Amino acid sequence: MNGRFKIFSDPVHGFISVPRGLILDLVASEEVQRLRRIRQLGVGHMVFPGAEHSRFGHALGAMALMHDALTSLSEKGTEISGPEMEAALAAALLHDVGHGPFSHTLEHELLSDFEHEQMSRALLGRMNDRLGGQLDLTLAIFDDTYERRWFHQLVSSQLDMDRLDYLRRDSYYTGVVEGSVGVGRIIKTLVVHPGDRSAEDRIVVEAKGAYAVENFLIARRLMYWQVYLHKTVLAGDFVLRSVVRRVRSHILNNRATLVEGASEAFMFFLRHGYSSADIDNTDVQDAFVSLDDTDIIYSLKRWVGSSDPVLADLSRRMLLRDFFRVDFGVDNEKFAEGQLEDNVGNYLLQAGLSSPERLFEDIPYYVHRSRSVHEAYDAKVDSIGVLNRSGQIDELTISEETHIVSGLAKRQVRPFICFPKEID
Amino acid sequence: MNGRFKIFSDPVHGFISVPRGLILDLVASEEVQRLRRIRQLGVGHMVFPGAEHSRFGHALGAMALMHDALTSLSEKGTEISGPEMEAALAAALLHDVGHGPFSHTLEHELLSDFEHEQMSRALLGRMNDRLGGQLDLTLAIFDDTYERRWFHQLVSSQLDMDRLDYLRRDSYYTGVVEGSVGVGRIIKTLVVHPGDRSAEDRIVVEAKGAYAVENFLIARRLMYWQVYLHKTVLAGDFVLRSVVRRVRSHILNNRATLVEGASEAFMFFLRHGYSSADIDNTDVQDAFVSLDDTDIIYSLKRWVGSSDPVLADLSRRMLLRDFFRVDFGVDNEKFAEGQLEDNVGNYLLQAGLSSPERLFEDIPYYVHRSRSVHEAYDAKVDSIGVLNRSGQIDELTISEETHIVSGLAKRQVRPFICFPKEID
Amino acid sequence: MNGRFKIFSDPVHGFISVPRGLILDLVASEEVQRLRRIRQLGVGHMVFPGAEHSRFGHALGAMALMHDALTSLSEKGTEISGPEMEAALAAALLHDVGHGPFSHTLEHELLSDFEHEQMSRALLGRMNDRLGGQLDLTLAIFDDTYERRWFHQLVSSQLDMDRLDYLRRDSYYTGVVEGSVGVGRIIKTLVVHPGDRSAEDRIVVEAKGAYAVENFLIARRLMYWQVYLHKTVLAGDFVLRSVVRRVRSHILNNRATLVEGASEAFMFFLRHGYSSADIDNTDVQDAFVSLDDTDIIYSLKRWVGSSDPVLADLSRRMLLRDFFRVDFGVDNEKFAEGQLEDNVGNYLLQAGLSSPERLFEDIPYYVHRSRSVHEAYDAKVDSIGVLNRSGQIDELTISEETHIVSGLAKRQVRPFICFPKEID
Amino acid sequence: MNGRFKIFSDPVHGFISVPRGLILDLVASEEVQRLRRIRQLGVGHMVFPGAEHSRFGHALGAMALMHDALTSLSEKGTEISGPEMEAALAAALLHDVGHGPFSHTLEHELLSDFEHEQMSRALLGRMNDRLGGQLDLTLAIFDDTYERRWFHQLVSSQLDMDRLDYLRRDSYYTGVVEGSVGVGRIIKTLVVHPGDRSAEDRIVVEAKGAYAVENFLIARRLMYWQVYLHKTVLAGDFVLRSVVRRVRSHILNNRATLVEGASEAFMFFLRHGYSSADIDNTDVQDAFVSLDDTDIIYSLKRWVGSSDPVLADLSRRMLLRDFFRVDFGVDNEKFAEGQLEDNVGNYLLQAGLSSPERLFEDIPYYVHRSRSVHEAYDAKVDSIGVLNRSGQIDELTISEETHIVSGLAKRQVRPFICFPKEID
Repeated sequence: MNGRFKIFSDPVHGFISVPRGLILDLVASEEVQRLRRIRQLGVGHMVFPGAEHSRFGHALGAMALMHDALTSLSEKGTEISGPEMEAALAAALLHDVGHGPFSHTLEHELLSDFEHEQMSRALLGRMNDRLGGQLDLTLAIFDDTYERRWFHQLVSSQLDMDRLDYLRRDSYYTGVVEGSVGVGRIIKTLVVHPGDRSAEDRIVVEAKGAYAVENFLIARRLMYWQVYLHKTVLAGDFVLRSVVRRVRSHILNNRATLVEGASEAFMFFLRHGYSSADIDNTDVQDAFVSLDDTDIIYSLKRWVGSSDPVLADLSRRMLLRDFFRVDFGVDNEKFAEGQLEDNVGNYLLQAGLSSPERLFEDIPYYVHRSRSVHEAYDAKVDSIGVLNRSGQIDELTISEETHIVSGLAKRQVRPFICFPKEID
Repeated sequence: MNGRFKIFSDPVHGFISVPRGLILDLVASEEVQRLRRIRQLGVGHMVFPGAEHSRFGHALGAMALMHDALTSLSEKGTEISGPEMEAALAAALLHDVGHGPFSHTLEHELLSDFEHEQMSRALLGRMNDRLGGQLDLTLAIFDDTYERRWFHQLVSSQLDMDRLDYLRRDSYYTGVVEGSVGVGRIIKTLVVHPGDRSAEDRIVVEAKGAYAVENFLIARRLMYWQVYLHKTVLAGDFVLRSVVRRVRSHILNNRATLVEGASEAFMFFLRHGYSSADIDNTDVQDAFVSLDDTDIIYSLKRWVGSSDPVLADLSRRMLLRDFFRVDFGVDNEKFAEGQLEDNVGNYLLQAGLSSPERLFEDIPYYVHRSRSVHEAYDAKVDSIGVLNRSGQIDELTISEETHIVSGLAKRQVRPFICFPKEID
Repeated sequence: MNGRFKIFSDPVHGFISVPRGLILDLVASEEVQRLRRIRQLGVGHMVFPGAEHSRFGHALGAMALMHDALTSLSEKGTEISGPEMEAALAAALLHDVGHGPFSHTLEHELLSDFEHEQMSRALLGRMNDRLGGQLDLTLAIFDDTYERRWFHQLVSSQLDMDRLDYLRRDSYYTGVVEGSVGVGRIIKTLVVHPGDRSAEDRIVVEAKGAYAVENFLIARRLMYWQVYLHKTVLAGDFVLRSVVRRVRSHILNNRATLVEGASEAFMFFLRHGYSSADIDNTDVQDAFVSLDDTDIIYSLKRWVGSSDPVLADLSRRMLLRDFFRVDFGVDNEKFAEGQLEDNVGNYLLQAGLSSPERLFEDIPYYVHRSRSVHEAYDAKVDSIGVLNRSGQIDELTISEETHIVSGLAKRQVRPFICFPKEID
Repeated sequence: MNGRFKIFSDPVHGFISVPRGLILDLVASEEVQRLRRIRQLGVGHMVFPGAEHSRFGHALGAMALMHDALTSLSEKGTEISGPEMEAALAAALLHDVGHGPFSHTLEHELLSDFEHEQMSRALLGRMNDRLGGQLDLTLAIFDDTYERRWFHQLVSSQLDMDRLDYLRRDSYYTGVVEGSVGVGRIIKTLVVHPGDRSAEDRIVVEAKGAYAVENFLIARRLMYWQVYLHKTVLAGDFVLRSVVRRVRSHILNNRATLVEGASEAFMFFLRHGYSSADIDNTDVQDAFVSLDDTDIIYSLKRWVGSSDPVLADLSRRMLLRDFFRVDFGVDNEKFAEGQLEDNVGNYLLQAGLSSPERLFEDIPYYVHRSRSVHEAYDAKVDSIGVLNRSGQIDELTISEETHIVSGLAKRQVRPFICFPKEID
């Protein structure tokens, strides 16, 4: 009665058609529905108030772009079978299913030595077991063991559907129009370049699309510095991580009463010292799937009433967006090593948040010296190829069209310090 | 250091300038920051996945439109003082501060005999006390006791800044482009019509803006039937209300163990039978301010494990968007009174969710007969006036330009039934 | 080398794919390329400065929507053959090919008793002869003689691809956002309802699309009153028609020197008294195809120097947008019959544009009494059907969802007068 | 009666308010109204069919952005007087008034040794004389003789209102979304940096705006290669210039009958060998003001029937968009010097466009060897300054935020050849 597709209205891509059957079942799964409760930008929505979107919309969007890309490649003569189409859609839909609450902010706080891709892989395996192997091909694409390796490129590379979607989407929701990317143009200019003895099949971009790709790299770089690594976002990240470390410290020191009332699933991770080695532990997976942003916010609301003044203050700061201040550059005399810590110490004493004997322990929750790092383009791994007019592949850095990519292919590092506004 | 304004990037209106001082302090208050944790559309985001925006952005947006409207009126010669501007901005910012979690879905479930406007008024008073009377004029405008009554019109009427913002905003986030409203055109054609002995000053729209106003009424009507009262939204509303009523029933019947683990602030309202009469109770206000969407979702995640199979099932349905089905119209024989309940009963037994002795009690959580009601334009209260070409005010229903408003000025009622998909 | 399609970048619909072969050949024809030189909105761009788009983009857009509609119907199970697809695309592309310069403004001035659809039909025939019958099926669809009559509905009805495209497009270019239509939603809800003994196959809209259709009717109505029949547009239309009538009068009275220097193709029509009866005359067709907006503007630039002061003044008014004034309503005493003409006469004398002996002849070029007429929905011809939930077709006026269409289904008439601003 | 402003609806910037008085009079002048008849992108609309917008909208848009910029600077504490505001608006409105038909395509064909800025200056002077000196301050700003030199920067520099408007506008109309620029963000971060003994007052951008400026440079570069210097645009430019040169050749050689019927104003320039030295000649100015795109198109339509087969062919190619082909790169053996000309010669003979004795003369109208040049950022002239966090000005190339500008600050050159598709 309702046709072969379920239609979702997406403000970014318009109508998204989800095929009934395996793909729609995946959308309905607890793993994917949980993404509705994980904001795409972590604390970013507290700086860009429109950006309250979740990872669920992004998962659908990446899947929709995968569909568009495969349809376009197919029109250009690349044969794609039904099972390949389905597996690629599933891979795009599930590529980020392993993200935890507040996405990147807490990525290294819940489990040590951890990347979310590992959990995505683990949950893909878990879902495949439940589905009796229906995701075998999806897993092969994800693991890059499928022989047509260009499928993996569409799922994970420097020009994958993930990036194309999140830039368009985050631009739409933040209102940072400069981050807007010509997704349609890029997808229309992708082509599978047939390999030979020396090289495998590979997704490359036609020469006329090279400017759009260059613009995509620049837009991504702008979004990093303007949004993802915005200084107020960095400040919010640090406050939230301070909360987590404070709670861990109390647990380690048997001061459980100071942190009571919090979410059980959250405490499960805070109590144990799990690392990426535990990722196949079923209890860990179960706890992870049941954990989302609401657990963290709920816990913060409880900890506002903690009898530890530092935990209460940090939690209040998160909830009321009373973040610290971030200054880029470290040459400021005022903030010389040691001096900054002294000033923060004085603030903590005056504000009644600490006492002389606890000061040494408390200061690190209020001072942070770090650096933001971004590399707009990495020419060394999975570089982007451009099909030039004589049918050869140029790497993007040397393509005739793109004179500035080499300027992008370096690591940009910006040191910063983070401290309470009150000491300024 | 950063000038007289703090700038927010809003995807809907562009850059919003918030004046430092009282208005920025209000934005930073716990009452307003809490709106970040209350979604604008309740369960609506589960039907329109892009619409995960909160009431915080809407509050800022209504304030921004108030600023635009007053600036435009001022350019047309209406004098507006600094304190009036500030008070009107505050009124627009705070007009919806009394919304509770899941907005309209739970409006009548937490306190009986309640409208969110009452709580907005109570919290405005509470904030005014804290601020030593700085909101006196805001309150007068809100209460419609300020002598220039047209200020109240901008805050609350059939053409107020609230409606102009939420239609534009909800259209932007749902992707329902037809709901888009010519906000700029409407605001540019507003004018204060000077009163005389028989009539007070009044905001009216110039004749050339009448089509845009008409379009606004139609867009609003479309958004009601297409989004706010979408049948899957109605289904989600019912499931969530069933959860709440089920928990209340367990509490009344001393079955607290069945509902344990939930959010304290939520349970505070579920345990007590508060009504709008208790709105000035400080404990009630405190609990209300500490309550938001995360309390409800956190509680649902706990109740999924309840030993009451009905509560567990309903909670799971909410979290996984496994909603009921809604059918409009009641002439369907299959769903004749009694027959539908029998079918639902059979389903509950087969699914192991109920037992013969509990069936009579359990069925009402799974069946709902109700009706959606919308009146696109109410000509009887605060009608919209059109300044015609001879300088007189026509009511919108009889304005030369707007032949169809009279068709809108009637209550549209659509009966529906709601029941588990499984029995279909 | 370039695949099966040529891609056009369209700001309204994104990328438009034009199939190589017949369709691309049609796009390249002189008849279609000429549409680049005919503005979609006649004098409308002088009121809405962004709306300088031509009929060429609209032709491509209607074709693109036809492709989307047929693809969607096909996914829903309606079989569509390759030749049918091609013929329908051609019909959408060519549906307005018979428009002349300044579109509707001069529609009845070049040939008497004429509708542009007649010329579209004639040029279709001419092209078909040239193409050796490749447009036979296109013509059958256009003429509504093809047995699957719903194809004709998509080309010409109250919900055809023409209207869907021009509303979206004119809204985009004028900046009148309220005119925006949910084209995607409407197209996705179209369905071919199989006929039976009493009724033929027919395009109808699913019930869930009824609100979007209603909104489309309202948006269209708003665009008529706000844009197409904007009072300054009406004024510009009249000035241009006055120019044409003045020139015709000079020709009839053997005063050719007063109008010399003008475009030959334009003069061809002004010299002869062609009517729709001459539409199959090859010379008329040739002249028509060679005629576009530039002929009219070029001629106006020459006539600014005419020794007839009236023709010079009217031409100058067109070029400098020094239009007349339009007042709606005729009850204004000042403009009583006779009085207005007297005032205009005085103006013409004082301005040196006329003399007492020529006054009686000259006044009609400066005064116009007329009425704008719009009928938002005509329930009597090709009504729009809604597929209700029990599988029956309701006419739009009585569909459960659309309470206001009956209000739209009446002719709205607005009398107006048009005269030089100077007499006011 | 209508307030202090006339409102224009602009699809790019929304509502534009034009102050009544001098500015509105300027808008109504023949010099500015003429811009309605000059397309912004020359032949660009034949490649991007949506981009049919004229220079009139751009003039209004640049003026609107000037208003926004001055309002923002004023809010930040820079004092701006009424006359300064008016003069700056006029300068933005009139900055491009000296553009001729087809903008850049024919810039060097009508007068030799000519830049359109010279004609803008001449027409500004002419208008100022007519207006009795009301544009004195505008002229001073335009000429950069006004003491507050930063006003000139807003009118003409690498970050002026002209560029901000045309990038946003051309992106909107072409549908090349990657060209979209964060105009609002850039304008909000502009600030007048007070000079001292060593430096004058200067417009600079706050550090937080540096990414948006960088993105603006990249977007501009993309628009150059993707739109303004698109290979089909280059091909169209060459065809049109070939037409002009062919006509000039006939005139020089007394073959006037081959080019008769064309626009007088166009022929005025083709007959004479005017150069920029003649720019103050009143006849030249009059002819220039009366000349626009319609003269060229009208003439092409006449020349299609010329008895010179080359002129007829080239004119037909322009009207039917049957452009030549452009290949970038010159290393293609097939197109070695001489060989290409031979092939073209053969084509001309076979197509009956030339004869052996005329071949040498005719070939150059069909072959073009040239190079496209673009410099995204010129660090040597009027460089863009960034106000860093310690209150100093960094030049954009060395600003901490912008690592790639130095990569942009070099001239990019792309050789190409242009020839009839038929020889390929």
